[in-house]
Amino acid sequence: MIYADNAATTKMSPLAMETMMHVLRESYGNPSALYTIGREAKKILDNARRDIAAVIHAAPGEIYFTSGGSEADNQAIRSAALLGARKGKKHLVSTAFEHHAILHTLEKLGREGFEVTLLDIHENGLVSAEQVAEAIREDTALVTVMAANNEIGTLQPIREIGRICREKGVVFHTDAVQALGHIPVDVQMDNIDMLSASAHKFHGPKGTGFLFVREGLDLLNLIEGGAQEKGKRAGTENTAGIASMAAALTEASLKIEETAADLSAKRDRLIRGLSEIPHSALNGDAEKRLPGNVNFCFEGVEGEMMILLLDKKGIQASSGSACTSGSLDPSHVLLAIGRDHDTARGSLRLTLSEDITMEEIEYLIGSVKETVEYLRSFSPTWKDLISGRTPFVL
Amino acid sequence: MIYADNAATTKMSPLAMETMMHVLRESYGNPSALYTIGREAKKILDNARRDIAAVIHAAPGEIYFTSGGSEADNQAIRSAALLGARKGKKHLVSTAFEHHAILHTLEKLGREGFEVTLLDIHENGLVSAEQVAEAIREDTALVTVMAANNEIGTLQPIREIGRICREKGVVFHTDAVQALGHIPVDVQMDNIDMLSASAHKFHGPKGTGFLFVREGLDLLNLIEGGAQEKGKRAGTENTAGIASMAAALTEASLKIEETAADLSAKRDRLIRGLSEIPHSALNGDAEKRLPGNVNFCFEGVEGEMMILLLDKKGIQASSGSACTSGSLDPSHVLLAIGRDHDTARGSLRLTLSEDITMEEIEYLIGSVKETVEYLRSFSPTWKDLISGRTPFVL
Repeated sequence: MIYADNAATTKMSPLAMETMMHVLRESYGNPSALYTIGREAKKILDNARRDIAAVIHAAPGEIYFTSGGSEADNQAIRSAALLGARKGKKHLVSTAFEHHAILHTLEKLGREGFEVTLLDIHENGLVSAEQVAEAIREDTALVTVMAANNEIGTLQPIREIGRICREKGVVFHTDAVQALGHIPVDVQMDNIDMLSASAHKFHGPKGTGFLFVREGLDLLNLIEGGAQEKGKRAGTENTAGIASMAAALTEASLKIEETAADLSAKRDRLIRGLSEIPHSALNGDAEKRLPGNVNFCFEGVEGEMMILLLDKKGIQASSGSACTSGSLDPSHVLLAIGRDHDTARGSLRLTLSEDITMEEIEYLIGSVKETVEYLRSFSPTWKDLISGRTPFVL
Repeated sequence: MIYADNAATTKMSPLAMETMMHVLRESYGNPSALYTIGREAKKILDNARRDIAAVIHAAPGEIYFTSGGSEADNQAIRSAALLGARKGKKHLVSTAFEHHAILHTLEKLGREGFEVTLLDIHENGLVSAEQVAEAIREDTALVTVMAANNEIGTLQPIREIGRICREKGVVFHTDAVQALGHIPVDVQMDNIDMLSASAHKFHGPKGTGFLFVREGLDLLNLIEGGAQEKGKRAGTENTAGIASMAAALTEASLKIEETAADLSAKRDRLIRGLSEIPHSALNGDAEKRLPGNVNFCFEGVEGEMMILLLDKKGIQASSGSACTSGSLDPSHVLLAIGRDHDTARGSLRLTLSEDITMEEIEYLIGSVKETVEYLRSFSPTWKDLISGRTPFVL
């Protein structure tokens, strides 16, 4: 089996798994308790906080553990918006192709009286720092732009965006769920005020993530209750998940350049191979993209059928993001970069992990070629296309 | 070591642990994905939902997975309040000794324009259904009363409270975090509309819980984003944690009567033993309490010192709830049942799990007696008390 849907979720690394089991077995104490096994659990949390902070060049006190990326995104956006409103700032800036954890939170804030500007995305899947600069107003409370897109993997210029926000005194949040553990992220150099992350996207466990909030910035609770996380996130800490997340992130960051170089080479071979398919197009910039992300549209092919046929060949891939895979609507990301509805439905996302071999890459190329050809042989759209009855759109 | 702080958190059962590891190792797919390992993960979620629903006599579609009890409490309370407000109902009824996940959420709603009535607690640690009936008004949107208190373990008359709420057409939520898996809970018989639960309180893992919401009742999101949990709770599901929670709850419920009977006998022996200590008092009703809960006040003794000395004897216990253990304030629960500040600071909570032996119970009794005696030998308060310079309050 070739698992090629690492943007949806990853398999835990042996180290992350071992760490998880060790804590589950040996350190079940409540980190808030005063006795020995409580203090041991607290120590595990402290170490995890220190290790995670070190990876992104933050201070340990700036890390708040959450149940995952969506919770972190919700808390960051709502908090920055509501705190901004207290100072009369009710304008929020983001992009049209953020994750739904961001977009739906912004929509809700829109219904609560905030004004939201969503920046257009260029055809290559990028926004520019200039667009952000132009969108910022006197009453802008927050700019939130993802570090890497979850479908097409394009890397946004967050360092420049962060610099502009810093200059203009606007809080800058980035959803780094897809980026962290895959490309270097440095909250100092990148001028980031708030950052969301999710463990299961970098070979850690599901159900845990974190929010970085720069020292000096206030934070409002999403979950009220006990005094955990300096009173900012209630609920008994998922000690084992947190320790495992820290292990996975540290492990990934120690070899990040090497993994990225290796994976980029495999990705580029895959892109070249799939580009040979007639009437295909890579979605998103070929270079400014995550090392493991390949996303194509194939004219005249329906994405869901492609996924099911590839599954029969032992390939696990996706069409769009997992969070919306139940939906029949075409991807909002592909629409944002200008694909039409029909084309957007024919998309295939292959997201690789470092353990994939070159032989597997070749198998992927061959299998996708066969599958596209097979599906086109039944496709009325495709027959119209090749007979010239409708214009080619790719 | 004797772990006697099971109200703070429990050790995972071997079955819960095995289930967790099996899913982590074998089924890492994203449950939203269409391919084989995604569908397998979805099946694991479906089975967990079915098993959990069966235990509380709910339908599978009424179970929403969350990151734990605090999140479930926050979502339930905020959702019921905001939906009530849409119909002009802005009054909320609860009790003075709920968990902080409830109380702090209510405080926040209070700041947002809701009116909150907190019912007084009788000295025995109980509220009555009559109090609830009297508090309900035309504009009451929600009644929330915990099934069992987290500090003193008293069991509230939720069935009667539920019946009254049903008659009056008011939504009834119960925080069953301490009760579930320890005493039978049946959402039909108990007339419960919404119920919060946390896996790590019944030998499941930390970081997972659920919210039951009766079919027909609407639910608002706390976490916006992907379409998981019928669009009501975004974020990739913690499949392993959820499967493990279902295993732990099913396991506990299969032997619940037997465990409760055995544990109650041990609890009662412990209560009798500790009652022999002069100037001690059991907190909360002796009979209407959780099978494993013992909570005492000892005059002239400081709780935190007692915990640290017991720790040296290999006993892990607490003074108040873990969620507030960093705080120097006396327990709001003990104040609610009428203890004064000084007495409330001298409390000891011992919460037992089924594997405790009668020998260990005797060791607990002897150790607490020694510790109280030792601490009193240094205590000026105690010297004042026994010399008659201040009146005894217990």
